[in-house]
Amino acid sequence: MRDLLNSYRGAEAFVTGGLGFIGSNLARRLADLGACVTVLDSMQPEYGGNRFNLDGYEERLQVRFGDLRDEPALARLVQGQRYVFHLAGQVSHLDSMRDPFADLESNCRGQLCLLEACRRHNPRARIVNTSTRQVYGRPTRLPVDEGHPLAPVDVNGIHKLAGEAYHTLYHRVHGLRTTSLRLTNTYGPRMRVRDARQMFLGFWFRRLVEELPLEVYGDGAQKRDFNYVDDVVDALLFAAASSNAEGEIYNLGGTEAVSLLDLAQQMIELNGGGSFQQVPFPPERKGIDIGDYYASSSRFRSASGWQPAVGLRDGLSRTLEYYRTHRAHYW
Amino acid sequence: MRDLLNSYRGAEAFVTGGLGFIGSNLARRLADLGACVTVLDSMQPEYGGNRFNLDGYEERLQVRFGDLRDEPALARLVQGQRYVFHLAGQVSHLDSMRDPFADLESNCRGQLCLLEACRRHNPRARIVNTSTRQVYGRPTRLPVDEGHPLAPVDVNGIHKLAGEAYHTLYHRVHGLRTTSLRLTNTYGPRMRVRDARQMFLGFWFRRLVEELPLEVYGDGAQKRDFNYVDDVVDALLFAAASSNAEGEIYNLGGTEAVSLLDLAQQMIELNGGGSFQQVPFPPERKGIDIGDYYASSSRFRSASGWQPAVGLRDGLSRTLEYYRTHRAHYW
Repeated sequence: MRDLLNSYRGAEAFVTGGLGFIGSNLARRLADLGACVTVLDSMQPEYGGNRFNLDGYEERLQVRFGDLRDEPALARLVQGQRYVFHLAGQVSHLDSMRDPFADLESNCRGQLCLLEACRRHNPRARIVNTSTRQVYGRPTRLPVDEGHPLAPVDVNGIHKLAGEAYHTLYHRVHGLRTTSLRLTNTYGPRMRVRDARQMFLGFWFRRLVEELPLEVYGDGAQKRDFNYVDDVVDALLFAAASSNAEGEIYNLGGTEAVSLLDLAQQMIELNGGGSFQQVPFPPERKGIDIGDYYASSSRFRSASGWQPAVGLRDGLSRTLEYYRTHRAHYW
Repeated sequence: MRDLLNSYRGAEAFVTGGLGFIGSNLARRLADLGACVTVLDSMQPEYGGNRFNLDGYEERLQVRFGDLRDEPALARLVQGQRYVFHLAGQVSHLDSMRDPFADLESNCRGQLCLLEACRRHNPRARIVNTSTRQVYGRPTRLPVDEGHPLAPVDVNGIHKLAGEAYHTLYHRVHGLRTTSLRLTNTYGPRMRVRDARQMFLGFWFRRLVEELPLEVYGDGAQKRDFNYVDDVVDALLFAAASSNAEGEIYNLGGTEAVSLLDLAQQMIELNGGGSFQQVPFPPERKGIDIGDYYASSSRFRSASGWQPAVGLRDGLSRTLEYYRTHRAHYW
């Protein structure tokens, strides 16, 4: 692993969505590994970009504010990059149903812009794309492996599936060196916690710190798996450094599957207090809910050597601690 | 079948892409069945719209020139329609690779515009969407049924897959009454024959009539199935009239699978003369070729009672005759 991470020392790396949750954690890590990091972020309200996410790193990396759809700017930015990590995008399933056109622009047009820029201006860049478990829709078998049918149940899932397919296509037809990772629930410091539009879990951290009850939809029996953000950052770094991962799509998956009720109880316990209440599923969420989901990531583990290292309790504790300290920057 | 087709008498029907190949054949048929037909066409160069396609029907239906993305116009057009047939769209696989953004606008944004207009202004309309076999990519088994993995190999296939998924989603979440049909090669009068950018077969008709050799790529051993356009029009009418088809996606498929070499030989024989030459696959076509393909349409036959009625030889003869007579309007 040390050898693998050494490959980032002095390397040019470009992170789209680099002021967002996962993007900023990745950018910080890359800077720590000695990479020359450029981040791009459109800072669209409600997408998760937050200047505080790069607090303390302002002098150690280049920050550009702009949109993937600005073709000339993107052409300049991708040139000379050894690594391109694509984290930008609209990620709220709920918002994608309310405004499918905004999701289309962000997750389809934005993806195509990035791939076209690389094809024209930097066809040898190693590209890692972040996709989502949402491409599977409601699981028909568990754990979900990459052979599971693809049947997204919301607009965001449809567009992320198209985004993956672009990456595979540009690899096959144009020779771009792309890998897509299908993320499950990712949590940790720098996630958006203002409300529940992106993920209920972010809002739960806020509610706990504010000493307000967590809302559990329905009976809370739905099982999910979770990855701590440092593990996801590792996965991105491992993927980009694995030449046998080029042209591939892999699941990430957590170390364990827990019910949402269990999760709420664990969080309250770790917090040393708090409460939850069960509320009926809001209709707009029920319509796009996927039921139980947890993934098998064994294909990616075999291909890259990646292992999630942070257990759920440890990750939840670290995240709670982060928001207790930095709430002023996230509410 | 007569009962079924009676349901169109006096019914309001809206056909997008109604000056194109399949759209115009459908619009004419609907007018013959006594429907009140409105067609919309953007007449984008190279998309297949041709005013001559509605020759003789100008007084029997309403023609509107415009774009699906013109929201206020579309809102007015969908109101009061009992049937909405969606035939508009960029259909060239090759062009989708050259300009993925144009394909995105046409096949993703256009689809979303139509569904949003129906959701807001006519949620009870019966909607039939035309998709493509291209959503499957290279078949891993034959004949291809609807359970075959979805792995499109070009940008058009990716966007048509997203388009289908929107229809299924809007059915499930918003209650729209949608059906998608995955078309295979459709041929017949009013198809675009100017060049081979949409389908090689159109161009073959032109070459035969012009007494020029047909070009067969590679060894011509690839097998394909074909539907005569009247059978596809029937399928659209049957789909819209079948309430058990709501929310579903079905394959259409031909009556037989023939190799492209066989097809060229049959066409030359039916034409009473002509020749073909085998040429290497152009690289830009090789990259997105799907090899052998033929579909099982048994699910749709069971659900709707549809049967293709026009055999390949008969259909090819009728089509040749059409272009011998009307070449002035299509070259």
